[in-house]
Amino acid sequence: MITHISPVGAMDLLSQLEVDRLKATASSDLYRLYRNCSLAVLNSGSHTDNSKELLELHKSFDVNVMRRERGIKLELVNPPEDAFVDGKIIRGIQEHMFSVLRDIVYVNMHVELRKDLNLTSAPHITNFIFSILRNAKTVRSGVDPNIVVCWGGHSINQIEFQYTREVGHELGLRELNICTGCGPGAMEGPMKGAAIGHAKQRYNQSRFIGLTEPSIIAAEPPNPIVNELVIMPDIEKRLEAFVRVGHGIVIFPGGAGTAEELLYILGILMHPENKGQPFPLVLTGPRESEPYFRTLDAFVKDTLGEDAAKHYEIVIDDPARVARIMKNAMPLIKEQRLATGDAYTYNWSLKIPPEFQLPFEPTHESMAGLDLHMNQRPEQLAANLRRAFSGIVAGNVKEEGIKEIERKGPFQINGDLKLMKRMDKLLRKFVDQQRMKLPGTAYVPCYEIITNNNHNGK
Amino acid sequence: MITHISPVGAMDLLSQLEVDRLKATASSDLYRLYRNCSLAVLNSGSHTDNSKELLELHKSFDVNVMRRERGIKLELVNPPEDAFVDGKIIRGIQEHMFSVLRDIVYVNMHVELRKDLNLTSAPHITNFIFSILRNAKTVRSGVDPNIVVCWGGHSINQIEFQYTREVGHELGLRELNICTGCGPGAMEGPMKGAAIGHAKQRYNQSRFIGLTEPSIIAAEPPNPIVNELVIMPDIEKRLEAFVRVGHGIVIFPGGAGTAEELLYILGILMHPENKGQPFPLVLTGPRESEPYFRTLDAFVKDTLGEDAAKHYEIVIDDPARVARIMKNAMPLIKEQRLATGDAYTYNWSLKIPPEFQLPFEPTHESMAGLDLHMNQRPEQLAANLRRAFSGIVAGNVKEEGIKEIERKGPFQINGDLKLMKRMDKLLRKFVDQQRMKLPGTAYVPCYEIITNNNHNGK
Amino acid sequence: MITHISPVGAMDLLSQLEVDRLKATASSDLYRLYRNCSLAVLNSGSHTDNSKELLELHKSFDVNVMRRERGIKLELVNPPEDAFVDGKIIRGIQEHMFSVLRDIVYVNMHVELRKDLNLTSAPHITNFIFSILRNAKTVRSGVDPNIVVCWGGHSINQIEFQYTREVGHELGLRELNICTGCGPGAMEGPMKGAAIGHAKQRYNQSRFIGLTEPSIIAAEPPNPIVNELVIMPDIEKRLEAFVRVGHGIVIFPGGAGTAEELLYILGILMHPENKGQPFPLVLTGPRESEPYFRTLDAFVKDTLGEDAAKHYEIVIDDPARVARIMKNAMPLIKEQRLATGDAYTYNWSLKIPPEFQLPFEPTHESMAGLDLHMNQRPEQLAANLRRAFSGIVAGNVKEEGIKEIERKGPFQINGDLKLMKRMDKLLRKFVDQQRMKLPGTAYVPCYEIITNNNHNGK
Amino acid sequence: MITHISPVGAMDLLSQLEVDRLKATASSDLYRLYRNCSLAVLNSGSHTDNSKELLELHKSFDVNVMRRERGIKLELVNPPEDAFVDGKIIRGIQEHMFSVLRDIVYVNMHVELRKDLNLTSAPHITNFIFSILRNAKTVRSGVDPNIVVCWGGHSINQIEFQYTREVGHELGLRELNICTGCGPGAMEGPMKGAAIGHAKQRYNQSRFIGLTEPSIIAAEPPNPIVNELVIMPDIEKRLEAFVRVGHGIVIFPGGAGTAEELLYILGILMHPENKGQPFPLVLTGPRESEPYFRTLDAFVKDTLGEDAAKHYEIVIDDPARVARIMKNAMPLIKEQRLATGDAYTYNWSLKIPPEFQLPFEPTHESMAGLDLHMNQRPEQLAANLRRAFSGIVAGNVKEEGIKEIERKGPFQINGDLKLMKRMDKLLRKFVDQQRMKLPGTAYVPCYEIITNNNHNGK
Repeated sequence: MITHISPVGAMDLLSQLEVDRLKATASSDLYRLYRNCSLAVLNSGSHTDNSKELLELHKSFDVNVMRRERGIKLELVNPPEDAFVDGKIIRGIQEHMFSVLRDIVYVNMHVELRKDLNLTSAPHITNFIFSILRNAKTVRSGVDPNIVVCWGGHSINQIEFQYTREVGHELGLRELNICTGCGPGAMEGPMKGAAIGHAKQRYNQSRFIGLTEPSIIAAEPPNPIVNELVIMPDIEKRLEAFVRVGHGIVIFPGGAGTAEELLYILGILMHPENKGQPFPLVLTGPRESEPYFRTLDAFVKDTLGEDAAKHYEIVIDDPARVARIMKNAMPLIKEQRLATGDAYTYNWSLKIPPEFQLPFEPTHESMAGLDLHMNQRPEQLAANLRRAFSGIVAGNVKEEGIKEIERKGPFQINGDLKLMKRMDKLLRKFVDQQRMKLPGTAYVPCYEIITNNNHNGK
Repeated sequence: MITHISPVGAMDLLSQLEVDRLKATASSDLYRLYRNCSLAVLNSGSHTDNSKELLELHKSFDVNVMRRERGIKLELVNPPEDAFVDGKIIRGIQEHMFSVLRDIVYVNMHVELRKDLNLTSAPHITNFIFSILRNAKTVRSGVDPNIVVCWGGHSINQIEFQYTREVGHELGLRELNICTGCGPGAMEGPMKGAAIGHAKQRYNQSRFIGLTEPSIIAAEPPNPIVNELVIMPDIEKRLEAFVRVGHGIVIFPGGAGTAEELLYILGILMHPENKGQPFPLVLTGPRESEPYFRTLDAFVKDTLGEDAAKHYEIVIDDPARVARIMKNAMPLIKEQRLATGDAYTYNWSLKIPPEFQLPFEPTHESMAGLDLHMNQRPEQLAANLRRAFSGIVAGNVKEEGIKEIERKGPFQINGDLKLMKRMDKLLRKFVDQQRMKLPGTAYVPCYEIITNNNHNGK
Repeated sequence: MITHISPVGAMDLLSQLEVDRLKATASSDLYRLYRNCSLAVLNSGSHTDNSKELLELHKSFDVNVMRRERGIKLELVNPPEDAFVDGKIIRGIQEHMFSVLRDIVYVNMHVELRKDLNLTSAPHITNFIFSILRNAKTVRSGVDPNIVVCWGGHSINQIEFQYTREVGHELGLRELNICTGCGPGAMEGPMKGAAIGHAKQRYNQSRFIGLTEPSIIAAEPPNPIVNELVIMPDIEKRLEAFVRVGHGIVIFPGGAGTAEELLYILGILMHPENKGQPFPLVLTGPRESEPYFRTLDAFVKDTLGEDAAKHYEIVIDDPARVARIMKNAMPLIKEQRLATGDAYTYNWSLKIPPEFQLPFEPTHESMAGLDLHMNQRPEQLAANLRRAFSGIVAGNVKEEGIKEIERKGPFQINGDLKLMKRMDKLLRKFVDQQRMKLPGTAYVPCYEIITNNNHNGK
Repeated sequence: MITHISPVGAMDLLSQLEVDRLKATASSDLYRLYRNCSLAVLNSGSHTDNSKELLELHKSFDVNVMRRERGIKLELVNPPEDAFVDGKIIRGIQEHMFSVLRDIVYVNMHVELRKDLNLTSAPHITNFIFSILRNAKTVRSGVDPNIVVCWGGHSINQIEFQYTREVGHELGLRELNICTGCGPGAMEGPMKGAAIGHAKQRYNQSRFIGLTEPSIIAAEPPNPIVNELVIMPDIEKRLEAFVRVGHGIVIFPGGAGTAEELLYILGILMHPENKGQPFPLVLTGPRESEPYFRTLDAFVKDTLGEDAAKHYEIVIDDPARVARIMKNAMPLIKEQRLATGDAYTYNWSLKIPPEFQLPFEPTHESMAGLDLHMNQRPEQLAANLRRAFSGIVAGNVKEEGIKEIERKGPFQINGDLKLMKRMDKLLRKFVDQQRMKLPGTAYVPCYEIITNNNHNGK
């Protein structure tokens, strides 16, 4: 089956040279990445979080950029059926298809044509992220602070899912918008809840921002209610986008990815230069999830110190309270941005240290080489722990990671014995609670925590 | 606690004389009705379907129309807390409050000031319903046919509720709008599903029309996502509004009220003058509800004849098919309206015989006097059966009805023996399946079917 | 030639009974009035101010209300060609056609069906005017005060016309909207100027309100850029609409009609109950018109007293200053309305004494009977002088008036000798300056001022 | 006096690096150009067409780009007063200020950062023009063909000006939009007329596109009703923008610039590859201007041949007919674009030969070296004649040109004797009719036509 779809959004006005280059770029090395992301987007109804599986299921799928005198079309060969209603592509998915083209191919093409881009420089990275988000119209002027980032697992149980929905509902009733990693579970519930909350308030500026990255999109395909989908180049730029675009963060129960996110934001908020930043951070879940948060809280305090815990508040079983904390912070954020002359739409003045900003590529070598000892500044330790969890996420659900693990066996993670034991305990809990992968398959860990060694400091 | 709320929608521009009269009207005999409907609307989060109970729970509630130089305000004394978020009334509920004022007080006041209104004349009734709906801006020009009426029980089980949601989702994906009786259950699920479907299609003309009536609104309070609430004067005008405004009807499982609705629409569609009317009518539910529909189908065929069953299609466990049937009918409806010069927004040419149009007040006398014999035209029988079920609904959930039953015991319904047995069987099923009332209380029937008599024709 | 046009605006949703009644009403006694106003509107390109002439030119013109299942159409027989572009009616004129239908036929029909209307009671009149303006959507909520009424002659010279345009330009640059009597000359120039001013400021809420009345519309046909045309029943209701809807008034040079308007507003502003009303009133013209205003000023001071002159400011040749006076008053008006709880859109609290509110029908008898003596309260004298000038306007340009004069000769106006001389002098000036009628014909006065009598007080 | 203005339109979301570069760029070599264009825009009320004069009048004017955390501001030092209303800059002028920044500084900066731009290649030029227009949002998708380019003199008499207004009015009544060179005279009249026409039709998509270039903007400052101002880099790119963006062209009387424009479009339309292009071209003026067009027509026929004249139609004193020709062509253009797959918004398929596309810099040398003989292809001759007139425009009103002439005396133009005589005659007419410069000063020609030589072919 072959279908053609027309551009919506940003890609509807291209020059002839751009179309030519786009066509060439999309057929180049980038092609596989582009095709796989497109497939992920078309597959939003799917129920697997295994990127590799998904790709194998749709081997005959193909996407081609077609040149038209007045612009482009996309040709889809054997697309997943669920993307269509009575033969017509769902509008949200159509938009997502062109978000992929825009963020994978077009951004890449522009990067190549620019003389002035240096992606190892901190200001360049921050400016580059801004450009991608502006190109996606996600940073925009004239809007008051109102974006709440919701983090949490893609694999959560029914009670937790219902709870994320209720928090979303309360956020929506307060006319706040939602930004998530745009997969299922804790990334979907808040948006659905907020949609109903917005409807009750007749709020028609709903923004459901999904920030993803090529290596995770297949495992966490965006729901079509995401009305601003942006594909960031890698997890570090995605995390930076979250914290510069969002005005507050809510963390629901989750697995390794959620731990990564928590460590990331804590490492940043603990930085002395960020002292004046009002940044509400709430960890929340239903009554049943209380032990989960107690464990996480203890892990943070034991590893990063009691001070780290001052940056967040744990709220159990009280969706309205979560929403009120966020809502009440918004005027303070507005005030602080006005005072410092910063933009409402992008937090330029938040300091992100290089160890959080520069990409970490999880390989067996880099994972084994992580410095996981207690004798370093807490922010530094947070950065390294963040990388460890990032590697585990890759081994669980990312195509490259899964292949690596298949080839070479689990990642070896070692460090300070006490820390390793703590970490091992945390991860085991995640496994027991089925937070590492969607239920239905037995989870085989992609890592080994070296807890029996003598390895006490290099 | 006292709060004041400002008008939104239709009531924000009143002349000084109108305000005076409104104030006077709202303090007159009408006041109790007005207050109770207001309370119902504020109580949208409640979980009872017993109007009497609700009213007793909020005895101290009061609502007053306040005169301001530039118009009106409403003063609420001890309103239910759930209507507010952080001390501010939910916008949807605020709108509903003024819908109540508009449809109860303002319409009433205008009726009194008009010299030309005769509410026993068929054209006058039909024109009066049009005026109410136009005043509420629910009939509007320039929109293609796209309104699907969803009927079904307020008390349905979780599987059925999920199913109504899925049907709503499929209708929403096809950019159809929803009109219901605006209570919980089958009246809420389709709207929530459609809201998500619309979001996926970026459809931003969502219409969630709720048509209710003063005597039922407390038992079936409107969800705030209803964005067009209209309170029709009585059940007959409400039913007429449904069939003139809707372009197709989906019937989910339900109890006596649903049976009333099915008999109403069948009685109309069977009328010879309505032969040319394209009017899709689907009975649908999940696999588990199949027996329910088989029973209903058999009841219709046995009482109204095989021909009656030609007007509907039963679809089991196939939400997409339901939505497709509705969607495919819309161009035919458009064509027929164009051909006959009728409006898209209000089906003027649908013939509604007087026995369906004139109000039936269920008392012990009128219920006992119903002509329930087989030797009458099927439309006539449909009309009388409709009245019987209407009375049962009143006895179950309407304030007046409940009081009557408390005073005088159950309604006595009698007629043709075979018919009575059929009816008895059907109603017992409803009771067994907990369709008569919300679960949690044992159901005590408000009627007795006289099946052991000799009563074979007057 | 026969054309059919479809409703735009308010008349696009009528019930079948309303259509029937409308059709009947439009064929009744009202028909001639309705037809003539329709002709006037279609004739907006015409260059005559003689109503009688216009009507005779288009004797074969006819307009019929046609019943359609879904509403109405208008059938035009032999309409003036200028209303069409390439066979299609100009949209602005199409709107005006339905404004005429709405304000002449529909309003009339509603008046007849209401039990509660008493048009000799002051509050009823004020409420009735509100209803007409609300029905035309000219009173509307949620808009800050910004409407400047521009009064002045339909027959002004090129320099004066250019000046009205410049004042309009300066008003438009300050995002003020314009309300006039909607004929040519001083009623057209400000709108055209404001349109350009609005365009320069990218102001897209332009309101060009035209308030007219059946007896003058043919002599002063509305320019199609008027985007809110309202036909008030008579000159008194039209004047009341001006002062309740407008937030300030600019008076350009003009003839008898302008004098009428000035006396009307002065009579009201001088009323003790209106003391607290901020109401900017400016008399303005180019350098060349200075003598005109000096004469008018002297006339006011001599007849109504020095105090009367405190209510206005004369600005010569300074359009920006005129606009600044109006602009600067707007926040004061807003404040005062807030303080008194009055509406921004309709000045309920302005006191209009009955002698200004009740209709004056100019006949030879009523004109001769006017009490034009100095020994009365200035407001009272203002009211009577207003009536005298109103009669002269009727004799000049209104169909009925012209016929009366043709039949019985000029009106006889008499009173206090000194006052009569003053008035005679003023009117002679108007004649000399060609302000009484469009240039091109010699002006034959429709009145005689009795200045040689002994008639010195009753 | 110092004022700060905030960005509107495209420049309101800049990254910090962009702001830094912009600031640096705006202070570089480009600064003088940028400052002068800004001054021109602020000076829209001025009545001189002498760029040099204007610049000398406002020597103390300065503009600076200021860095703010969230973007930029412009600091204006001693700006012309006419740009402000009560101390607030006119919104249209504010937009124009940022159009200048965008098109002069931002475009320039981007050009410098791009690796792939080759401005001597035809496709690159065409794509570059597209990019500039897209960046200005002047090319846009989803709009039917409706743009009429109006060319003609900035110095025309009152009768001609009124005529351009009437043509604009008729175009506006047909819901066509206007694109001009955005100075006074024939560039202003059509927009003002169309604004009224649009208002009468309630057409609210008005586009008044002004295409200018840095060297002419001071002589022909844009009126603030221009709501899309684009500053193209040079006259050749400006002309290309006109013919790719416009769907038809109306030429009013004018001087050397108008002759340049006519020769440009004729040279293109005569190209064989453009045979299938529907491109309505009308020369029009009031009755009084008929001789002007006869002279021009004869000049074209004598120099480029009778065939050249087939590409245009001369319409005398019939504004409605001009508008009808344009309106009737639009469906044909739409059809042809659809058939060839070309965009409605930008005519990619129009062939523009290099001699029309590459910049011609008028110096004494290049002017003297022009090949002005009859023995070349007519398109080629058209291109060379175009250059000759282009040089004369520069000598008349452009800053650089005026200085050149002051330094070295008039340009020497020579060629074929017969052709030179024709040209001399035409130019003399322009002088006599005061078409070369605004009236008020005696015109001293900036050229000498060598008509007495023996110079008969190289």
